[in-house]
Amino acid sequence: MKAYKDMTREELFAEKEKLEAMYQDYKGQNLALNMSRGKPSASQLDLSKGMMDVLKSDSNLTCEDGTDCRNYGVLDGIPEAKRLLAGMIGAKPEQVIVYGNSSLNVMYDSVARCMYEGVLGGKPWALQGKVKFLCPVPGYDRHFGITEHFGVEMINVPMTPDGPDMDMVEKLVSEDPLVKGIWCVPKYTNPQGYVYSDETVRRFANLKPAAEDFRIFWDNAYCIHHLYNGEPAQILNILDECEKAGNPDMVYEFVSTSKVVFPGSGMAALAASTANVASIKKQMAVQTIGHDKVNQLRHVRFFGDNEGMEAHMKKHADLIRPKFEALISIMEEDLGGLDIAEWTNPKGGYFIGFDSMPGCAKEIVAKMKEAGVILTGAGATFPYHIDPQDRNIRLAPTFPTIDELKLASRVFTVCVRLVSAEKLLAEKA
Amino acid sequence: MKAYKDMTREELFAEKEKLEAMYQDYKGQNLALNMSRGKPSASQLDLSKGMMDVLKSDSNLTCEDGTDCRNYGVLDGIPEAKRLLAGMIGAKPEQVIVYGNSSLNVMYDSVARCMYEGVLGGKPWALQGKVKFLCPVPGYDRHFGITEHFGVEMINVPMTPDGPDMDMVEKLVSEDPLVKGIWCVPKYTNPQGYVYSDETVRRFANLKPAAEDFRIFWDNAYCIHHLYNGEPAQILNILDECEKAGNPDMVYEFVSTSKVVFPGSGMAALAASTANVASIKKQMAVQTIGHDKVNQLRHVRFFGDNEGMEAHMKKHADLIRPKFEALISIMEEDLGGLDIAEWTNPKGGYFIGFDSMPGCAKEIVAKMKEAGVILTGAGATFPYHIDPQDRNIRLAPTFPTIDELKLASRVFTVCVRLVSAEKLLAEKA
Repeated sequence: MKAYKDMTREELFAEKEKLEAMYQDYKGQNLALNMSRGKPSASQLDLSKGMMDVLKSDSNLTCEDGTDCRNYGVLDGIPEAKRLLAGMIGAKPEQVIVYGNSSLNVMYDSVARCMYEGVLGGKPWALQGKVKFLCPVPGYDRHFGITEHFGVEMINVPMTPDGPDMDMVEKLVSEDPLVKGIWCVPKYTNPQGYVYSDETVRRFANLKPAAEDFRIFWDNAYCIHHLYNGEPAQILNILDECEKAGNPDMVYEFVSTSKVVFPGSGMAALAASTANVASIKKQMAVQTIGHDKVNQLRHVRFFGDNEGMEAHMKKHADLIRPKFEALISIMEEDLGGLDIAEWTNPKGGYFIGFDSMPGCAKEIVAKMKEAGVILTGAGATFPYHIDPQDRNIRLAPTFPTIDELKLASRVFTVCVRLVSAEKLLAEKA
Repeated sequence: MKAYKDMTREELFAEKEKLEAMYQDYKGQNLALNMSRGKPSASQLDLSKGMMDVLKSDSNLTCEDGTDCRNYGVLDGIPEAKRLLAGMIGAKPEQVIVYGNSSLNVMYDSVARCMYEGVLGGKPWALQGKVKFLCPVPGYDRHFGITEHFGVEMINVPMTPDGPDMDMVEKLVSEDPLVKGIWCVPKYTNPQGYVYSDETVRRFANLKPAAEDFRIFWDNAYCIHHLYNGEPAQILNILDECEKAGNPDMVYEFVSTSKVVFPGSGMAALAASTANVASIKKQMAVQTIGHDKVNQLRHVRFFGDNEGMEAHMKKHADLIRPKFEALISIMEEDLGGLDIAEWTNPKGGYFIGFDSMPGCAKEIVAKMKEAGVILTGAGATFPYHIDPQDRNIRLAPTFPTIDELKLASRVFTVCVRLVSAEKLLAEKA
């Protein structure tokens, strides 16, 4: 297919007319599809059906240290749950605090604690002026939502296939004591599916922050969420690397079972140095009686160990890999050679990063909505919802069935082509 | 028995010698008993064994509005869980937000939100100077722990059998705009087991706070926790009364299933006016993906409805009433007429309030510990752990078995008598 920019005005106009007809046809179908959120599909959830049979009325509900999980007690998680969650990210069990259902909640609480109580006994961030976070972009909207909520100034840092632009990160972190944190999804980044290289992780661990209370917010959300079972990506263990670099306290790592078992009934965890864990537990002792220990026990008994969990993840991969492949092959087929879009080809995670021509993303998302297909809002992958080039769209292929997804993908490529053709026509006018 | 204060020095000395011998005898038994925390006993937890069989792998895990409880979604709780929790306190389901396992966490988050984000769009408490909370005393240590943590100044308000001293409450609340809140456990107060009278509730609802952003923190922890099934205490519905009084937004009410089912795996809720709920949900949308919906569904299916829950509470009552009665009858038997102590006789809740002679509580608790019986720390029932008269002790009879409890109670009365006798001897010296 000829690249749009090489088409004459007449060719482009004809293309636009054809696409307009296709688009109207889709609109006439009254579709109701959704490619907006990184949600597991019903068949993925069915993989964990057995969770509901793990604990019965005659089960022993005592965990390995003798605690009755039904009663009060245990602030930071039962030992076997700590071990399981630590195993997901290669941390030590004593580095782990187990929380409730939402890792977002753990991140929110962590930022709140830094803002209002300070880091390891230091001055609260909120009393130090307008503090800043570095935000690799495109990134995860809910991360940016937290820092925006707390009035933190967010600075865009460009993302590369090896991780954030580390020259820029090093410069900003070492020069400005008001830079207090950075949001990272190191493995299978949201939305691109990139994997931080070993060099990137080491450069993170070796940062020399101007602020003593600078923290890396390392959201390892997709640590075991591979699409290709034969070739799982590996990243270096940031806790270990920070320790080696003499920066043991510089990172808070987050992990959860949301996309492993049930997003609506999982457990999340924070992993950090001994000093961080001790300091956080002091605050937690005032905040809560403790999180759901019966559910912790249920998870551990369901998987047995981390090997059991990894075997389980392969079943997820088998269900979602065909969806990623279908969406990507449809984009290749319909958009290949047109020179109007780029997209990533992830080996794990839940998303595909898509870039249209500049100035087209909002219009594409709006057209999709009009045709009954919901995408993540344009701009959502940037702080303050401002995509400076209006071109990034996060595609989430996991939730629809494969047939729905294929249909939605076709509508998508038509919308991309139509909006691009209209844009180029307007430019040539 | 003769009152200690009417004894001669010699009589008292003989009494002390006798008690000292009894105490040494108990010490020799290497006891390990605990009357410190309001924990259900193992047999109470066994009442809810069936919870573990409610949801199975072939159960429909969809709630009544069609949401798959296993997946993401639903910030404020599934409809049937809202209804169940609302029913516990006579609230409307739309007044309720369902949270995770710990109502303490809900209270902590509520204070944090007021401190740093303000109430209904108002100026954050933290920016208004040294804000104050009224603390009915003796009260619940973990309430005071939260306000202490946030640097809130706590003002003691004396408790009466009808509730806090409302003359004092009205005066302080109406005169001082820095008074931002008050901690209340309206039904079966912790630790006395008192029940707020209708007049008290109405006076609360009709407060005229100097601070527009004043809030009553109404911890209805023991709303359905009656000891005597024939005569459950009733209190007025504070949400309704506040609305009638033209103060609909003035109260945050808290409730949980902790002592109904499993404290280690329950659900908590906040109930408040429409305006408060809308404002809180806005912040929650940034904070969390949502709480455990599968567990919400499990609770609803286990009880069916509020009648089912109340029937269940009667079984709890049958297990714990004998413990309250045993402890109280032992105190009557061993301490009656000695004029060295007073205690309450609750009709519900988890505690008995006990007052020794002034200046004796710490010593009694220490002596108990030495003999292997753990009590709640003396002073714990007051802000800053300071009991001005050093006389209040919170007794928690539910957790031990009845035999353990009887033994612990006997050790307790010996310690009370011994410390009182020593105190009086010292005074007569």
